[in-house]
Amino acid sequence: MNHYQFSDLSTGMKEEFTVTVDQDKMDKFYQITGDANPLHQDDSFAKDQGYPAAVAYGMLTASFLSSLAGMYLPGEKSLIQSAEVKFLQPVFPGDTLRVCGEVKELNESVQRMVLKTTIYNQEQRKVLRGEMKIGFLK
Amino acid sequence: MNHYQFSDLSTGMKEEFTVTVDQDKMDKFYQITGDANPLHQDDSFAKDQGYPAAVAYGMLTASFLSSLAGMYLPGEKSLIQSAEVKFLQPVFPGDTLRVCGEVKELNESVQRMVLKTTIYNQEQRKVLRGEMKIGFLK
Repeated sequence: MNHYQFSDLSTGMKEEFTVTVDQDKMDKFYQITGDANPLHQDDSFAKDQGYPAAVAYGMLTASFLSSLAGMYLPGEKSLIQSAEVKFLQPVFPGDTLRVCGEVKELNESVQRMVLKTTIYNQEQRKVLRGEMKIGFLK
Repeated sequence: MNHYQFSDLSTGMKEEFTVTVDQDKMDKFYQITGDANPLHQDDSFAKDQGYPAAVAYGMLTASFLSSLAGMYLPGEKSLIQSAEVKFLQPVFPGDTLRVCGEVKELNESVQRMVLKTTIYNQEQRKVLRGEMKIGFLK
């Protein structure tokens, strides 16, 4: 876990990690949320909609932004204030995602950063784009 | 699960459900994301930061928006395109959340709705406010 303070950061700083969306994560996300939507649980339903298989929950992909902020950038001092995400491409169980953050803005007066977030799949396609406003614990 | 089609909806329509954020959901969210940030795992760290106990992951609270769209509004036909969330108050394990959605805009030409989302805790305090753009499966 990183321990960046606000004063350690500069715009353009980057961190990233990779994670695989497996069926176990899908099952746990279902157990947390109770979201039984068939697009995420039923391959034949998803195929009828033109997908090759059941699609990973978008908010499961977005959940990795929690780790990006809380473990990497800034790490321990992270306090996420807001998040915006756009889902650009479907993610499927088995996909390996690269979760990337880049410091876009630093607001000294309120000790807050804007982190630009991008998630790529193993084919280097952007599956999620967004940003988070993150404050700093003392 | 609801099965609203685009044509069934009108602005102002609402759906809601309640869910309790327990330690089991916290543990599963950790297992999914690997986010070991001490604000969410260590009561004494959180107390040093001025909180009464470890704080629930913000993105765990946001994950219930997956169920709001996928189960309630619109339900089966939901295809979340984007989401924005602001975290207004901390959530703690044991809190019971009321997850509310209201149709804010309907864009006929692209068959997309804007869903206004608000999550309240058991003290009726807003803990999350946001919106999602949601398309419709065929």
